[in-house]
Amino acid sequence: MKKSRLTGHFTLPAQKGMDREVQMLCEKWSVDAIRDSDGTSLSPEILKLAPDIYSTICLIRADQAWAKQHPDACQQKFLMSFPVTAVQTGPLRIHLMKGYSSEQFRVDWIHEPGKYWDVVDRTTGDILESGQWTYEEQGGEVIIPVARQWHVYTVNFLVYQIWETTSMYNYITNHWTGEHQMGVDPRQPETGKHLLNYLDDWLKAHPHTDYVRFTSMFYQFPLIKGEKRETLYLDWSGYLDAMSALALDQFETGFGYRLRSEDIIDQGYYNATYRIPKKPFLDWMTFTQEFVRPYTKKCVNRVHEAGKKAILFFCDHWIGTEPYLDGFGKLGFDGIVGPCLSGVEWRRISDVPGNLVKEVRLYPYFFEVNLQEEPVFRDEGDPVRECKKWWKGIRRAMLRRCVDRIGFGGYLELACKYPAFLDYVAVLADEFRTVLHRTKKTKPHTLPKKTVVLDCWGKMRSWMHNDNWPQGHVPEFLSGFNADVEFLNFDDLRRNGIPEDIGVIINWGNAESAWSGGHHWRDPKIVETVRNWVFKGGGFIGVGDPSAHEFQGRFFQLSDVLGVEKETGNTLAWTKRFNPEPNRRHFILADAGDEIDLGVRTSSVYVSSPGTELLAGSGTEVILAANTYGRGRSVYFAGYLHHPFNMRLLHRALLWASGQEKEMKRWFSSNMHTDCAFYPDVDEFVVMNNSEQEQDTTVYDQEGNAIRFSLEPMEMKWLTRTELQQLRPKQ
Amino acid sequence: MKKSRLTGHFTLPAQKGMDREVQMLCEKWSVDAIRDSDGTSLSPEILKLAPDIYSTICLIRADQAWAKQHPDACQQKFLMSFPVTAVQTGPLRIHLMKGYSSEQFRVDWIHEPGKYWDVVDRTTGDILESGQWTYEEQGGEVIIPVARQWHVYTVNFLVYQIWETTSMYNYITNHWTGEHQMGVDPRQPETGKHLLNYLDDWLKAHPHTDYVRFTSMFYQFPLIKGEKRETLYLDWSGYLDAMSALALDQFETGFGYRLRSEDIIDQGYYNATYRIPKKPFLDWMTFTQEFVRPYTKKCVNRVHEAGKKAILFFCDHWIGTEPYLDGFGKLGFDGIVGPCLSGVEWRRISDVPGNLVKEVRLYPYFFEVNLQEEPVFRDEGDPVRECKKWWKGIRRAMLRRCVDRIGFGGYLELACKYPAFLDYVAVLADEFRTVLHRTKKTKPHTLPKKTVVLDCWGKMRSWMHNDNWPQGHVPEFLSGFNADVEFLNFDDLRRNGIPEDIGVIINWGNAESAWSGGHHWRDPKIVETVRNWVFKGGGFIGVGDPSAHEFQGRFFQLSDVLGVEKETGNTLAWTKRFNPEPNRRHFILADAGDEIDLGVRTSSVYVSSPGTELLAGSGTEVILAANTYGRGRSVYFAGYLHHPFNMRLLHRALLWASGQEKEMKRWFSSNMHTDCAFYPDVDEFVVMNNSEQEQDTTVYDQEGNAIRFSLEPMEMKWLTRTELQQLRPKQ
Repeated sequence: MKKSRLTGHFTLPAQKGMDREVQMLCEKWSVDAIRDSDGTSLSPEILKLAPDIYSTICLIRADQAWAKQHPDACQQKFLMSFPVTAVQTGPLRIHLMKGYSSEQFRVDWIHEPGKYWDVVDRTTGDILESGQWTYEEQGGEVIIPVARQWHVYTVNFLVYQIWETTSMYNYITNHWTGEHQMGVDPRQPETGKHLLNYLDDWLKAHPHTDYVRFTSMFYQFPLIKGEKRETLYLDWSGYLDAMSALALDQFETGFGYRLRSEDIIDQGYYNATYRIPKKPFLDWMTFTQEFVRPYTKKCVNRVHEAGKKAILFFCDHWIGTEPYLDGFGKLGFDGIVGPCLSGVEWRRISDVPGNLVKEVRLYPYFFEVNLQEEPVFRDEGDPVRECKKWWKGIRRAMLRRCVDRIGFGGYLELACKYPAFLDYVAVLADEFRTVLHRTKKTKPHTLPKKTVVLDCWGKMRSWMHNDNWPQGHVPEFLSGFNADVEFLNFDDLRRNGIPEDIGVIINWGNAESAWSGGHHWRDPKIVETVRNWVFKGGGFIGVGDPSAHEFQGRFFQLSDVLGVEKETGNTLAWTKRFNPEPNRRHFILADAGDEIDLGVRTSSVYVSSPGTELLAGSGTEVILAANTYGRGRSVYFAGYLHHPFNMRLLHRALLWASGQEKEMKRWFSSNMHTDCAFYPDVDEFVVMNNSEQEQDTTVYDQEGNAIRFSLEPMEMKWLTRTELQQLRPKQ
Repeated sequence: MKKSRLTGHFTLPAQKGMDREVQMLCEKWSVDAIRDSDGTSLSPEILKLAPDIYSTICLIRADQAWAKQHPDACQQKFLMSFPVTAVQTGPLRIHLMKGYSSEQFRVDWIHEPGKYWDVVDRTTGDILESGQWTYEEQGGEVIIPVARQWHVYTVNFLVYQIWETTSMYNYITNHWTGEHQMGVDPRQPETGKHLLNYLDDWLKAHPHTDYVRFTSMFYQFPLIKGEKRETLYLDWSGYLDAMSALALDQFETGFGYRLRSEDIIDQGYYNATYRIPKKPFLDWMTFTQEFVRPYTKKCVNRVHEAGKKAILFFCDHWIGTEPYLDGFGKLGFDGIVGPCLSGVEWRRISDVPGNLVKEVRLYPYFFEVNLQEEPVFRDEGDPVRECKKWWKGIRRAMLRRCVDRIGFGGYLELACKYPAFLDYVAVLADEFRTVLHRTKKTKPHTLPKKTVVLDCWGKMRSWMHNDNWPQGHVPEFLSGFNADVEFLNFDDLRRNGIPEDIGVIINWGNAESAWSGGHHWRDPKIVETVRNWVFKGGGFIGVGDPSAHEFQGRFFQLSDVLGVEKETGNTLAWTKRFNPEPNRRHFILADAGDEIDLGVRTSSVYVSSPGTELLAGSGTEVILAANTYGRGRSVYFAGYLHHPFNMRLLHRALLWASGQEKEMKRWFSSNMHTDCAFYPDVDEFVVMNNSEQEQDTTVYDQEGNAIRFSLEPMEMKWLTRTELQQLRPKQ
């Protein structure tokens, strides 16, 4: 392979005063784009070093001078005061901000509390009448003159967010001092106009910039801090931060009804991503998207008019820009960048529809600590180990669908203190570029039938499974699985049924979560559709609490399909009659060891059908089981932990459930610490060691011929099909 | 002590043809009453042996000839056919009895199915209209001509129970052959009259009988058998078997509304004791009691008129005779007998209000196998070990409140094959008689404040906690705890608040169970009452899912009192902020070892208040925690397993929660394998070794003086207070 093919596709974060290091790394990592980071800007010398210059801009906090002059332009949010029990009769005073960070939030006393706030008696669920409470701005309190003794009260109140979330995170993590940055709300007409003007000026002031990297648009996922700067609440896919008094009023005009604060507060659960979304909240999301998208389009247009290209950083202030929502292409972005710790996060970017440049920002971020606040570029930190940890998992997804570019973020000065890290990134970058150039982004051999994940979100939140962050467990497996994966929600199922090309449906998660689906399983249309489809030959895989919703004598509504049911305390008097011995010779267990660890020791799930095959656990504490239903099949997993043994279990379960067992030994690598892929359009084959130990494996080609390989730690071995054929054992 | 005081109070089950053995045992065990058992009758020789003759009669199955002539007089029950999924369009045929024992049940085709049955679409919850289904008696089927494809259907149908439950159990367990006995329903007027006449005749035919032991009255707890005689459903406290078409019609007259079959079927959960009872089911219980009690009274009157005494066997057909319901005393029973495997079962009898003779039937029953079908009087069975296992636990309760008599049941010929067992029973009988004679049934020293168990049943089901059968775990501890124990239900709390003399309230059990209380915790009156009482100095102990009901942002409605909350998947985005180190020096832990095993390794319960003291587990997997609330205290147990270490934990928790720590070392034995009690009215003291090993212990008397004891295995050592004082170490 020619050396020239293995250059570029790499974005380097530059840093002022580090010109020599930048130059060295441009060479070492073959950098073809340089970008600034939050808190840095590029020197003229650096600007000359790379073919492409990325400049980051976060419009909502770009003009702090203006923000200071317009404190009411700050973004807003609903908070719920922490619950207070009225321990005596008489007036109850609730200090609104108690427990919350006064650095991050300031109570909004400007917009009439009586109109926008709600005081809730959480003991009855009643929202208090307007005459039943007052407030005192000076003390920051709501007063309930006649509180009912021993009732618990909370106040849903609007705040201004006076410290912008990303800059707050960076500030706290890097121990910055100095002024806090504010974030303004473009929905406010004057602010909206100002930001567009600011962007125009900024574009003019950045003649060397080729790519404008929006970091990111306007409204961020919620990160709520407490009085000691501790994180109180964090939802990577949450949708709270686009709120404002103005938005509430505009919503009423647009949707014909008024949102109550409680529609957002959600009993203090804040409509987290794992909560089953209700109609008002879904409307709120739509309403927000309907503002963000046209406004985003205006920004992108301005970038284009300035002769530059526009890139979306799909993180931080991503609300409303979801790339899997129809119409994303119309926003006109030339590229999208996402942070990437896992296969799921890789696929989140690589699967984005549209012909735009896709880039991932790898980890570790060049900060002293990682997202778990463990040392990386500091003390006993080991950035190579940290980097390999994530890269190992990511590469599985890379073989399925590649992105166009990789990059890093943070402060170069930290990275440059660790030469071994600089060396490893060079290796990693070459691995990525080899995949890109060898495969030409063509599709590898894939199973005939698709795999579908069924939850409350579907396509809108494809590969956005953060509640087992960073891996998302089952979705993380799927990110490297050799099948096309799609995401459906219950409305899709109601509207369109199950498409013909689907082999298996997965439903996973806690009972009554947005993942498992809760009350949607009470809808006859849903269970009819799934039963019909499985009975006629489909596959259904349930993990955790699939189809769970207590109704009419069942907890797993599809217990007839699954052949198992959960004991939640309603059937204790019923004998658990079916106690089959585990069938260790089942197809699914062919590679399993003696012990199966799915992360749960007990499940309270019992075998409920005489034909159910127990694969692990017992008849009353099922860990893994398989069942047939008509011509279809189902598999139940009590849990799932993402590691090689379980990946193989799930792999086999997916094949078995969809009746594709015979497809297994086709472009398949027998050692579970390895992976392989064949790209028919470009006649390239790769076998890859995902471990840091040497591995031997047997690869099966299209016809099932076995070829043995020995692989160095982390090695990727590339061959053409012809080269592979020559390795076949002679008959 | 005089030998003469240690005789009697013992009931022996006699057996035909075993006169010699009966005579021997009358001497060895000091028997003063002889009774027959199911399937035996007494010879004239045996009748002469003991002062008192007990004769058992089970009226509903006493006259089999009459039952055969009146097959429609059999008792009835609602069954729910096993769920059937309509896998195709067109008619769905449901074979009603599929899965159920046709030996035990026969479908009732006599009473119009359209009136009494219901066909339920379990996918929608809809009860089908009368025109939507038909039936065919010949095939035993219900037909739904136009079933909705992929919907699940069940039929609630009436059956006759053609094999009476107790006789069925004995028949199957003892491998009897021959005819099955039927049980008739006294609610049917002709049957009711016949049974009273039969009783009159029977009384005349039993001139030697002193005590008529009703075994028992009319309607038994449900035991449902399957096609292979396997147990499908068993609820020791269930209330299904008093059903009949006639009862349904009479209920409508009496209560002004008609019960639906679904009120009884309860989605197939059959209103098991652990299910939160609903109004119609509670009405059904009342309705049943209103028939059973007057009819029982008629029977008892006839016994008295015949110059004999009447005893209730409080088991089997006990429905409607509950001794803790007001009015039990008016039934006129002279005695009550209960089977007894545990302290709970002992207290169930010993605590019965009223001045009647209380007797327990101890275990093992003289059957080849025990209730778990393990060999006892057979093969490798060891009846002494089996007997000690239960007796050890029972004795704790015996010290708290004694009964008047003990006895055994079953077939003497089996027991007589095991001489060691005969010897051990003599020892056991002397232990019992010593307690009875020494204490004269006076009350031992007891803590100043009462302990209350709060659940949906309250007093009605005092000491009837069978869902952790046989021990009931927490109630089993309480059966030997030195406090007065009462049982309250939520209605008691609503009506009367919490009595002054209560020190601590315990709420235990699974979420949404009759024990924990479910929706009752949503009633403001309940949480107001408990919060108020704890805040002013009360103690609250929660085990498992106390006060659990998902409502208004809380799962544990009393999380403010408990200082802990459960993660059920709704607060994953919230940081669990409070991670205290376990406080190993807490009063509750003073006797605890390094490891605390409450039977659960994880709990998903987290510390939710800053002041909560963690005692075991972690801040996010709390196993044991303590909190203060105003002047009151609470303790949370994630689980409870009944063994000495945990008994001590719970003992200390009860003292701490109720502020009675200073009462601990008063008539207290330090070694957790021992117990002691002091009976002030008779000046008697006992210290008891509950283990089969020697134990040393320190006993603390009224003033807290320490006296050391060494105890042989299982030893009970009796002293007067004076004797005890002499053992005090000299100052």
